[in-house]
Amino acid sequence: MSAQHTPAPSRPLHPPLRDLPVSPTLAADDTIARRRREGLPVLPLGFGEAGIPLHPALVRELTSAADRGAYGPVAGSAPLRAAAAGYWSRRGLPTDPGLVVCGPGSKALLFGLLMSLTDGDVAIPAPSWVSYAAQASLTGAKPVFIATPPGEGGVPSPALLADAVVRARSQGRSIRAVIVTLPDNPTGTLASEATVRRLCAVAREHDLLIISDEIYRDLVHDPDRKVPSPAAYAPERTVVTTALSKHLAAGGWRLGVARLPDGPFGRALRASLVGVASEMWSSAPAPIQHAAAYAFAEPPELVAHVDRSRGLHAAVARAVAARFSDAGARVRPPEAAFYVYPDLGPHREVLQEAHGIRTGADLCEFLLERYGMCVLPGSAFGEPDDALRVRVAPTRLYGEDDEQRRAALAALDPVALPWVAESLDRLSEILADLTTGVTASGLHTAAIA
Amino acid sequence: MSAQHTPAPSRPLHPPLRDLPVSPTLAADDTIARRRREGLPVLPLGFGEAGIPLHPALVRELTSAADRGAYGPVAGSAPLRAAAAGYWSRRGLPTDPGLVVCGPGSKALLFGLLMSLTDGDVAIPAPSWVSYAAQASLTGAKPVFIATPPGEGGVPSPALLADAVVRARSQGRSIRAVIVTLPDNPTGTLASEATVRRLCAVAREHDLLIISDEIYRDLVHDPDRKVPSPAAYAPERTVVTTALSKHLAAGGWRLGVARLPDGPFGRALRASLVGVASEMWSSAPAPIQHAAAYAFAEPPELVAHVDRSRGLHAAVARAVAARFSDAGARVRPPEAAFYVYPDLGPHREVLQEAHGIRTGADLCEFLLERYGMCVLPGSAFGEPDDALRVRVAPTRLYGEDDEQRRAALAALDPVALPWVAESLDRLSEILADLTTGVTASGLHTAAIA
Repeated sequence: MSAQHTPAPSRPLHPPLRDLPVSPTLAADDTIARRRREGLPVLPLGFGEAGIPLHPALVRELTSAADRGAYGPVAGSAPLRAAAAGYWSRRGLPTDPGLVVCGPGSKALLFGLLMSLTDGDVAIPAPSWVSYAAQASLTGAKPVFIATPPGEGGVPSPALLADAVVRARSQGRSIRAVIVTLPDNPTGTLASEATVRRLCAVAREHDLLIISDEIYRDLVHDPDRKVPSPAAYAPERTVVTTALSKHLAAGGWRLGVARLPDGPFGRALRASLVGVASEMWSSAPAPIQHAAAYAFAEPPELVAHVDRSRGLHAAVARAVAARFSDAGARVRPPEAAFYVYPDLGPHREVLQEAHGIRTGADLCEFLLERYGMCVLPGSAFGEPDDALRVRVAPTRLYGEDDEQRRAALAALDPVALPWVAESLDRLSEILADLTTGVTASGLHTAAIA
Repeated sequence: MSAQHTPAPSRPLHPPLRDLPVSPTLAADDTIARRRREGLPVLPLGFGEAGIPLHPALVRELTSAADRGAYGPVAGSAPLRAAAAGYWSRRGLPTDPGLVVCGPGSKALLFGLLMSLTDGDVAIPAPSWVSYAAQASLTGAKPVFIATPPGEGGVPSPALLADAVVRARSQGRSIRAVIVTLPDNPTGTLASEATVRRLCAVAREHDLLIISDEIYRDLVHDPDRKVPSPAAYAPERTVVTTALSKHLAAGGWRLGVARLPDGPFGRALRASLVGVASEMWSSAPAPIQHAAAYAFAEPPELVAHVDRSRGLHAAVARAVAARFSDAGARVRPPEAAFYVYPDLGPHREVLQEAHGIRTGADLCEFLLERYGMCVLPGSAFGEPDDALRVRVAPTRLYGEDDEQRRAALAALDPVALPWVAESLDRLSEILADLTTGVTASGLHTAAIA
């Protein structure tokens, strides 16, 4: 009644809040869960989870440490740091356990590393994992997207990076760090040694910290192919991170490790990171650190398990890429991890005319609403809005339950398993329907598991 | 050889790093561990850990969920959020599970909450837990220390808070949030309902977010005494946090929960916090979430366990306070948690003349170097450098191993247990030696377990 007499507030009615949407990959997961509850058909290709059960030996190790309730060192337990050092040393990166820092996921460690830098912008590849840019912004740094060379996702083009550094300086800003992903999410490719070496030369020339996210390192489809880590070519300035989330499918355990550079800068960075960690998360969970120490020691049973999971990821990713290719999309053969990154640009005209799709976001929304198919647009990874590239993560197709997932892991030809084949056929149907320009398709009403 | 010809660098040789020391409480823990390894005597009173074993039921529950490797919702599992809502509802704070957000420790949640605010300074009590000010600084906010009323640690004096808000505004700044600790670390006291109500009135008048850290809520020594949460008096603007770390001694599990306010502001804050969480830590560890859901449901066996631990903390804290009082320190009777906060100000002259001690940091360094006694200076909690108050955390005296700790939990008179009595006597000896002004004491050479 008296509202018209209320004076206009002279200040906001509550403290100003950050408007930050939930991470797109996690939001996609929520959407799929909601549609399942509502009984709607789904083809869940959005979420970057490994999609296989935990190995029983990891479960056994966590169980054996379930009584550990005490806080431990901020940087992680000595056995875990030693095991992680061994893991890297076996990959050609000799590592001092004193330079290993553990955290509750490599996501938290990446955040802590960016928080350790007090000044400067951060160069990140375009496309790249959704959280790099969001994290940089949260820490007050400006994320500078830099295109990757064709077919070499995860590493900013060295020439474009050098240009960007010079340009930033001419504008009174400075790029202080560059993030690389080896091998890459979202493209499922692996940059060449030559490109990584050139990237390292640019970083050295311009005093950049290199943060190398190698969480998919053990999932290069060709196990003989070497991962060219910048830690080998610019050891004095490269931090490497990895975790249990991908090759060991323990994303829900939240356990990551970082390998800091040796030398004065690396030791100063370690001290800064440990200081930040002590105020942000104290330590990683003690029982899970124990299981992680076992995992990074790489006993034969886990090595065999990772080998099997690599084979499964490779087979299904290749099959998915083939389905997109058959439907007229541009797609590179996947080389690593469990992602395919097709480009529906060749169908741009029909998508726009038949469905009003102009952007990658339009495309993904249409796929979700019409078919229950969840993929993420390239724009979520830093691509232009009008790019019609999408990230496809087919791991949820491995099975509806652990029995199916174990069967997929054990199968010589997982693509031939009925539930996988059925999903692949459903994908082909959707793509055919999408790209024929027929707008009144009844396909979306078909039920699918 | 050619160093003199090296041109001066035109820019730093590496990206500028944050100079942030490791959290003082954790650093003290490292110091004690080092002295033990070196065979030096220690009296570890520095680290704020509960000092009792995990209850077997918690271990059982974690074990039963050890096979959970999948990522879950950012805000936490539905059973955990429902259990936490029940925990608060039983304490007079009816709670919608949709307004509960879980994280890897309440420390991470507090950080995330501060990160959700995009503008403004943060008022914190002086003294207060070491991490509030560090976290505020990391998120770009200025921490504004405000003295607490005598005997009411954890809550900034409402009148001084109002003054500070007005003063900040006159300087073109604005205080947007206030943190309170109920009951309090480091003082071991609990503010009155009247003070909390006045604090809430000031917060409402000036549109402040209230963050109420209630991690010690279940450890008020008198179990009939009510904890006056600001969530009861300013529900529209109060966030409450708690965790498993203190009353259930699961600090190493890293599991905290936050209760967001109901209403439009609370829902906006929840969305912001979940967005920040999704980029900082994804989720809390899934197996530990399962055990936490069991814990927050408060089955009788855990309630009895918390009752026993409360009695142990109260008995030992009272005995420690008495030893300080007997030695001429000013000390309030501890009321909650497991801390004593004595003031050695009455001995200022002798401490300065005999030992050159002028500041709280001097005092703590002397105690550590001379006697292996670790306590933290008031300055670590935001007090003036020259304050001779120290925080004493006697939980490590409960035992050297779980057998002794279980005996301490079960004892009717834990202070009479030989190992506890011996440490208390050692404390009295140290204090007598410290305050007599004899500088060449041989006491520090005595070995002690």
